[in-house]
Formats: sequence, structure tokens, C-alpha cells
Amino acid sequence: MADGTAGHIATKPALGIDVRLAARNGTLTGHTSHLAHGFVQGNLVVLPKDLAGDFLRYCQLNPKPCPLIGISDPGSPHIPALGADLDIRTDIPRYRVWRHGALVDEPTDVADVWRDDLVSFVLGCSFTFEAALLDDGITLRHVACGANVAMYRTSISTQAAGTFQGPTVVSMRPLKAADAIRAIQITSRFPAMHGAPIHIGDPGLIGIRNIAVPDYGDPVDVHADEIPVFWACGVTPQAAIAAAKPDFAITHAPGAMLVTDRRNSEYAVF
Amino acid sequence: MADGTAGHIATKPALGIDVRLAARNGTLTGHTSHLAHGFVQGNLVVLPKDLAGDFLRYCQLNPKPCPLIGISDPGSPHIPALGADLDIRTDIPRYRVWRHGALVDEPTDVADVWRDDLVSFVLGCSFTFEAALLDDGITLRHVACGANVAMYRTSISTQAAGTFQGPTVVSMRPLKAADAIRAIQITSRFPAMHGAPIHIGDPGLIGIRNIAVPDYGDPVDVHADEIPVFWACGVTPQAAIAAAKPDFAITHAPGAMLVTDRRNSEYAVF
Repeated sequence: MADGTAGHIATKPALGIDVRLAARNGTLTGHTSHLAHGFVQGNLVVLPKDLAGDFLRYCQLNPKPCPLIGISDPGSPHIPALGADLDIRTDIPRYRVWRHGALVDEPTDVADVWRDDLVSFVLGCSFTFEAALLDDGITLRHVACGANVAMYRTSISTQAAGTFQGPTVVSMRPLKAADAIRAIQITSRFPAMHGAPIHIGDPGLIGIRNIAVPDYGDPVDVHADEIPVFWACGVTPQAAIAAAKPDFAITHAPGAMLVTDRRNSEYAVF
Repeated sequence: MADGTAGHIATKPALGIDVRLAARNGTLTGHTSHLAHGFVQGNLVVLPKDLAGDFLRYCQLNPKPCPLIGISDPGSPHIPALGADLDIRTDIPRYRVWRHGALVDEPTDVADVWRDDLVSFVLGCSFTFEAALLDDGITLRHVACGANVAMYRTSISTQAAGTFQGPTVVSMRPLKAADAIRAIQITSRFPAMHGAPIHIGDPGLIGIRNIAVPDYGDPVDVHADEIPVFWACGVTPQAAIAAAKPDFAITHAPGAMLVTDRRNSEYAVF
């Protein structure tokens, strides 16, 4: 993404803080895929504090789609554990603002709509395990194509907590059998980044009717000698927000993540 | 196997040494599946010492089908690392004797054909990882049916060493997707017991034409909601012996393994 395209920065930032600063000063307004190699990126969910308890419980009940890696104090836009200077209001390249479950805006900062009763949640993201897969020499077709990963709503319900409920959303990567086995091993090391897949093989068994038509992201071919491999996805809470219809919520825009100062390797359990 | 059937012992032996003693005194002449729960069982290959170097290299080149866990001094029937009293000539319930690559006998001891130039090799066995899968609550259909596992010659060639060469033989267990993912995690912990599967899904991709007709063992149904999962198998060296045609060789009879004093958990890498 060092191509100078509008919304992207001209030099590839080496550190998490470089990405945050570029988002903060408006140089970066697009996606964060493969920026700051080796640093953890996260999904963002911001909710009024009267819903925070329910959402925390929702994450605890659904650790594969919603692995919580950071949480703010109520009203604070800071999460020091993920970055000393980190400011949730400005450090993400693009946000989504939700009112009563409907997406109403996609701004590049949320300082003007910030409220003193908001709690921020950061959830692990598949970019961490994708980096580990790529480092292992596994080809990921959506990365090779410069596309977004294909994502699907499934028939696997999440465990409800308060008003939060909905389907588990999965991301799918087609892999040859040997790579699928290796990918299960590698992603098992990262339980905080969705961990091992939750399904392999027949998409119909988890309620996906047409693999060629994802519900989010871009379609990707599955070749005859490949198996579709499905991981729980951080878009799941956005489906839960659409169901819960809180009066106000903020998330990241898909692909435009919060880049932290934590290293991917810190989250490898063995 | 505490059913009093001819060739089986009346009480289920608790320790590896109990199984060896039962084999040694002729009480046990059948298979060892699920005897001495928690103790490592091994595949046996005995060869004249002039072939031992080639076979060692064959194991080193093909660690998934041939994970070496013990080796004797030339001429010695003992492998103290696997059991202080262990005697290769008597402690296996049933043997196979091979001359010039042909199976010529299936005796219950090999003391009368023993030679001073023989080297014994013990290779890890899937019984270790099957115990871990069963302990995790995964149902293995061949175990539930009291059958032998289904095994197949594949189009995956082993790496040749001297005259030793041939196809990789695999064992197949049909599993639901979630159990297949878990089984990949669990068996990855046991690289000395064939480790992770080498294939999942379409049998044709590894040269298996008819999944209903195994080359060794018993057929097992694969249900519509299951994926066949294939592990490298300790029968592979028997195919290599058939190819190498050494003037003399001894192996265990399929399912009648060497039971050791080592614990399965000692071989778990994490």
C-alpha cells in the first residue's frame, strides 16, 4: 500500500505508532492491511457504558468471534495497554457511526461525536494470523489478489447477552489440504486472534448457501483441489450491534483497523 | 479386550510390562489396542545390520510414517530405553517373518529364528494419538465398531534410502469438521506418533480410488457430514520391506504392537 493512492501513505510505516499518527493527521484514510508488519491490529467497538456490561458478557460467551484484547475506562478514549499515546477518537483511518442499529456515517475521526459515557472495546483481528500464515509460505488468494477476505453470515448462532445476539460471521480462505492442516496448527497459536478455524469443507453445513456470494468482503475462487477453511470473524459484533440497535455505537470501517504497539508474537500461546 | 476370547488375556493389563509379560508367556497372542491405557505402543521393524544404516536413513527422511522412538544395538534383543526387561524376541503378541520381501510366517515369538546380526527399530504408533482423541471425547468409528482402522496406499511416495522405497501408507478416520480441526490440534502434539494428518478431504488427491476398499484393515463408513482425515501410518515400512526384499526381516503383525514402559504424555511436545 506504498503506492501513493489517495488515502494511503507514501511510505510503508514500520511501527504501530506510525500508522496511528498517519490516521491521526489524516494522511491515512484507507485500510491498514500489511501496514506495520508484526504489530497487532484490532477490531473496534465503542458503546455507551450502560451497554458495556452486556457487551463484555457477549465477548466472554463468544471468544472465537469476539476475542477481547483491550478495553477503556468509561469515557476515556485511551487504552494504554495497547499504546501509550493511543487515542480511539482519531487513530483509526476510518470509522463507522451507528445510530439505533443503522450505519449513519463513515468519518475519518469521531472527536466531534464523542461522548463522556463511551466504553471502547478492541478485539483481536485475523491480520495477526494472516501474517503468520504468509510468513510460513502459505499463499492467501485474497491477499495475492489485493482483495478483502470473503465473509459470510452462518447458521451458527452466537450466545446472546442482553440485547446482543446474532449469527457468527466467518471469514473464508481456500487452501490446499496440506496448507489447511498447517493453517489450523498456526492459527491455533493465536486464540486472541480468532484462533483455529471453526469449520472446514462443506459450506452448507454452516448455512452458507452460495460460497461465490459473500455477505461482506470480496468473492474468491475455490479451486477443485482446495478446501474452504472458515474462521470466526471480528465482523460478528457489527451484526450484533445491528440486532441490538443501541442508540449510539462506533466501530472501525472494515479493513481500517486500530494498529497497536503490541507485537503479534506476544499473543502466540506456544 | 477383557472378553476371554482365545488369544486375549482375561483381565485388562494396567501397565506396559503386564502386556509384555502376557505376550512373553503366551497368554496374549492377539492385538494390543486399548491395553495398558496411557502407555506408548510401537511398530516393530527388525533387519540385518547391513541394512540398518539404509533403514535409519529411510526413517530420518520419512519422519511422519516412520517416527523412530527406539533402536537396539546390533544383535541385541533389548531396548532398555523403552523397557528395562524388554525382549524383542518374545514380548510382542504376534510377529510377521519376511524372507526376500515375502511374508512367510506369523509366529507368537521369534526366538527360534533370531540372529546375531539383527537390529530392532521401534516406530511410534497411532494408538497414542487415538487415546488422546478418545480422552478429548472424539468418537472414532473404527474403535466404536471394534474394527481395525482403514489403511490405504497413496500416491505420495516416500523418500527412498538405499533399497527402501514405496508409497506412504495412511490410516483414515472420518470426522465431523469441528472434530477434524480438534484432531489436527491434538495429533500435532505427538510428532513421534505420526503427528498431524497429511491430508484431509478428497481421497482422490492422494491417489485413493475407492475409499470403501482399504488396502489394509477394515472399511469404515464416511457420513455426508464428515471429512475423511488421513494420517501417515506405521504400515509404510512393511511396504518398503516388500519393495527392498531383504533376505530376512521381522515386523509385528498389524495391531499386535510392542507395548513399552513409556507414557504417551512423555511424547506430547506442548
